[in-house]
Amino acid sequence: MMSLGAFVHETGQHVAAWRHPDAYMESGTNFRQMMRVAQTAERGLFDLFFLADSAAVTINGEQSGRMGKTVKFEPITVLSALAAVTSHIGLVGTVSSTYHDPYILARQFGSLDQISGGRAGWNLVTSNNEAEALNHSLDRHPLHADRYDRAIEFAAVVQGLWESWDEDAFIRDKASGVFFDIRKVHPLNHKGRHFSVKGPLNVARSPQGRPVLVQAGASDTGRDVAARTAEVVFTAQTTLEQAQEFYGDVVGRLANHGRSRDDVCILPGIYPVVGRTQAEAEEKFAHLQSLIHPDVGLAILSHTIGVPNLHQYDLDGPVPEMAVTNGPRSRQALLLDAARRDNLTLRQLCLLNAGPRGHLMTVGTPEQIVDVMEHWFRNGAADGFNVMPAWLPGSLDDFVDMVVPELQRRRLYRTEYAGTTLRDHLGLARPHRLAAAAD
Amino acid sequence: MMSLGAFVHETGQHVAAWRHPDAYMESGTNFRQMMRVAQTAERGLFDLFFLADSAAVTINGEQSGRMGKTVKFEPITVLSALAAVTSHIGLVGTVSSTYHDPYILARQFGSLDQISGGRAGWNLVTSNNEAEALNHSLDRHPLHADRYDRAIEFAAVVQGLWESWDEDAFIRDKASGVFFDIRKVHPLNHKGRHFSVKGPLNVARSPQGRPVLVQAGASDTGRDVAARTAEVVFTAQTTLEQAQEFYGDVVGRLANHGRSRDDVCILPGIYPVVGRTQAEAEEKFAHLQSLIHPDVGLAILSHTIGVPNLHQYDLDGPVPEMAVTNGPRSRQALLLDAARRDNLTLRQLCLLNAGPRGHLMTVGTPEQIVDVMEHWFRNGAADGFNVMPAWLPGSLDDFVDMVVPELQRRRLYRTEYAGTTLRDHLGLARPHRLAAAAD
Repeated sequence: MMSLGAFVHETGQHVAAWRHPDAYMESGTNFRQMMRVAQTAERGLFDLFFLADSAAVTINGEQSGRMGKTVKFEPITVLSALAAVTSHIGLVGTVSSTYHDPYILARQFGSLDQISGGRAGWNLVTSNNEAEALNHSLDRHPLHADRYDRAIEFAAVVQGLWESWDEDAFIRDKASGVFFDIRKVHPLNHKGRHFSVKGPLNVARSPQGRPVLVQAGASDTGRDVAARTAEVVFTAQTTLEQAQEFYGDVVGRLANHGRSRDDVCILPGIYPVVGRTQAEAEEKFAHLQSLIHPDVGLAILSHTIGVPNLHQYDLDGPVPEMAVTNGPRSRQALLLDAARRDNLTLRQLCLLNAGPRGHLMTVGTPEQIVDVMEHWFRNGAADGFNVMPAWLPGSLDDFVDMVVPELQRRRLYRTEYAGTTLRDHLGLARPHRLAAAAD
Repeated sequence: MMSLGAFVHETGQHVAAWRHPDAYMESGTNFRQMMRVAQTAERGLFDLFFLADSAAVTINGEQSGRMGKTVKFEPITVLSALAAVTSHIGLVGTVSSTYHDPYILARQFGSLDQISGGRAGWNLVTSNNEAEALNHSLDRHPLHADRYDRAIEFAAVVQGLWESWDEDAFIRDKASGVFFDIRKVHPLNHKGRHFSVKGPLNVARSPQGRPVLVQAGASDTGRDVAARTAEVVFTAQTTLEQAQEFYGDVVGRLANHGRSRDDVCILPGIYPVVGRTQAEAEEKFAHLQSLIHPDVGLAILSHTIGVPNLHQYDLDGPVPEMAVTNGPRSRQALLLDAARRDNLTLRQLCLLNAGPRGHLMTVGTPEQIVDVMEHWFRNGAADGFNVMPAWLPGSLDDFVDMVVPELQRRRLYRTEYAGTTLRDHLGLARPHRLAAAAD
C-alpha cells in the first residue's frame, strides 16, 4: 500500500495561492481554516499531515509584501491543537536542530505524541534560511558540515531521551502507593561534542514507542543522515530516473547503519493539479500562474538562481546571459538549459520556476495522475508521496475527492485506517523498551 | 470583580492526590483527563488555566517511585491542544528563561495566542530546579542574580518581538496582490548582553495585542522584575498581613517603571478544601493526608528544610534538633517554630509540611472559604486568587459547584464571560500598535 503525506503551507504550495478567489488567506492567524484542512486530509485517509517551517522574515523591497506565507503558525503549537480535533492522521512538524535545544525538542514532540495518542513525527532539518541565525544570537549561519555534525548528535540525544522509560514503568497502584518502578527509568548521561544531557526525559513512552523521525537530506551527507536515523524520507525529484537513483542510494546505505528496508519509508513530493478533463486541469494551473505578479516571479527566480537585479532586463525579451554565481548550481543550470532549449522569455522562465519548485508536477485527470504515481510506486522510486496542494482548501479537496478514490479503485491505497498511530499507518515497527532489554 | 486562576498539576496539588480513590492518575499521558479539567475550569468561568512546570526528573531512592507528578505534558503543547477544545478561558504556561531561546519562545506563545484567539499567557520563571542545568548542557544552575539578569533581557526581547507587526499590517487584497504593507512590520534589532535578535517575529499581532506576561518572583529582585514587566503576579502568602505587605510593595514599585495600578493583577495562591459542612471538609483533608506515605513525607520535609537523612529519627518521637543548613531559611524556621510550639512529632511535622506547601489553606464550607477570599480582596491583599485544587477532578469540581456560586451570590465574580481574550477577563488594557505609533 502507498503512503501519503499532506504537505501544507497555510495558503498552499503555489506562490500566488492566496490570490485564488476561493483560497484561504488568513495565513497563520485563523486556526479554524487550518483545522478544516487537516480534517480534509484525515477524511482522505492520509498517513500524515506535514508542516514545513522557517523561522525568519526577510523584507526585501515592495515585492516582499506580496508574499502570502510571511507569518505562520509555529508547527509544534498548531500540531498540538490539531491533535485535539483529529483522531487518526499523523502530525509531523519541522524543527531545526541548528537553533533548538534537544531536551526541549524531545520533550515537546514527546508531549505531542502523548496528546495525539502516538501520532507525532519530527522532521529534522538543519535550516536553509541563513537569516535564522540572526534571530538566535549568532552572527552567521553555521556551515553545512557543522550543521550536520550537530544534527547527528542532536538526533541521537533526542532519540535517546525518548527511550527514558520502559513501557511498563508505570504501576499506579493506589493501594500500595507505588506510582512507578524506579528500575524502569533510564537516565541518558550523554556527553558529546555539542551537548551534555543527563536525562531522563519527563515524558513517558508513547503509544507508538516514540515519535517518528523524518528527514529530507538531498546532499551526500543528508542521504547518510537519512540512512542512519530517518524513518520517513521526504525528497524532491522530477524524473523517474532521478527518483530511482535517490531511492536506491538511500536504501543501499541502510545496511551500513544496521538497518533494513522495512525501517524507512521514502516519499517524493508530488504537486498535482487535478481536473475532470486534461483541459480543465491545465486551465486551473494556468489560472494560478496568471496570479503571479511579475515582481514576485523575478524575486523568486533571483533567489533560485542566485542572480540579483533581474529587474534591469526586459520581461518579454530573451533570458539574458548570466554569469555562474554562488547560488544552487544544479537548479540554475537546469533552468537556463530549459530557457535556451525552448527559447523562453524571461517572463516564461519566471513562471516555469515559480510553479513546481523542483517537485514532480502532474496536471491532469485523476487517472493520469494515478498512472504516474503507480509507475513510480511499482518501479522502485517511491513508497508513496508527499502531496503538495497548490492552493487551499481547493487543491486538497480535489485530491481527496478525485485522486484518492482512483488510488483505492486500483487497490494502491487504504479504504480505512487500520491502526491508530503514525507508525501503524506507515507500516513501521513499534520500537519496544521492556525491562528485559533495560540497562 | 475578582479574578481566578486554576492552578493545575496533572493529578492535583496534594502530594498524594493520585491515591485518592476517584483521582485521575494518568499524569501526563491522558489528554482526555486534562481536557475535562480545563473544561470544568471554563464552566467555572475562571480567568485562566495555569500550568506550572519543571524540566527534570530526579530519582533519589525508592520513595521517588511514589511521586505522582514525575512525567507530565509539556505546557506549550498541551495548552495548544486545550485551545482547540475550549473557547474562553485563558491559557498560561510556565517556561524558564534560563534554558530557552527568546525567539522560539516568543514564536510559540505568539502562535498559541493566535490559535486560541487571544488567550495565551507566559509565566516567566528562572527555574528553581537545579537539575535542569544538566539537561541543557550546563554543568551547574546559574546563580540567582545571573538568572534574573538574563530573565530581564529575555522578557524585553520577547515583548519586543510581539510588537513586530502593526495590527493593520495585513491588507490581503487579492485584486492588487498586496498581502501586507512592508512599512508596518518592524525588526527588533536587539543586541544585548545575553542575546542578539534581529526579528521581526514571523507571527502576526494577536487579538489581545500580545500574550499576557505572568511572573511569581518573591525575592527583592523577583518583586522588581514583577513590577517592571509582569501583568499578572502569582504569589504564595499564608497570612493577610504578609499578603498586604507583598501587594503594597509590588504596587509601590510600579511607578519606578512608568506603570500604574491598572497594569497588574496580583493573585495569591489559595488551597481550598470544600465541604458542605466544616466537618465534611476536615474529613476530606484528613483523608488526603492519610494517603501520604511516611517516606514521601520525610523526603519532602528533607527537601523543604534542607536536612538529609531524616530516616534515622523515630517518626512518632519529637522533632529532633537540627543544625541550620543551606536550605530555604524562612520556611525552615517557620516549620521548626511550629514543631516546638505545638509539640509536634516528626510524623506530624511531615504532614504539616506536605499539606499546603506555603500557600493559604482554607478547609471549610463555601461560605467560610468565600469569607476569607472576600476579606483579602477587600483589604488590599489580592485582586483574586490562584486556586490550587488538592486532587483532580474532584477538588476543582467542588470549587466550581460550591464556591463559585457563593462568590457570584456576593457579586464578587462574573456570571458569564464578558469578553473573549485573557486581557478582557483580567481587565488589562489591550496594547495597541498602529501605524501612527510606528517607528
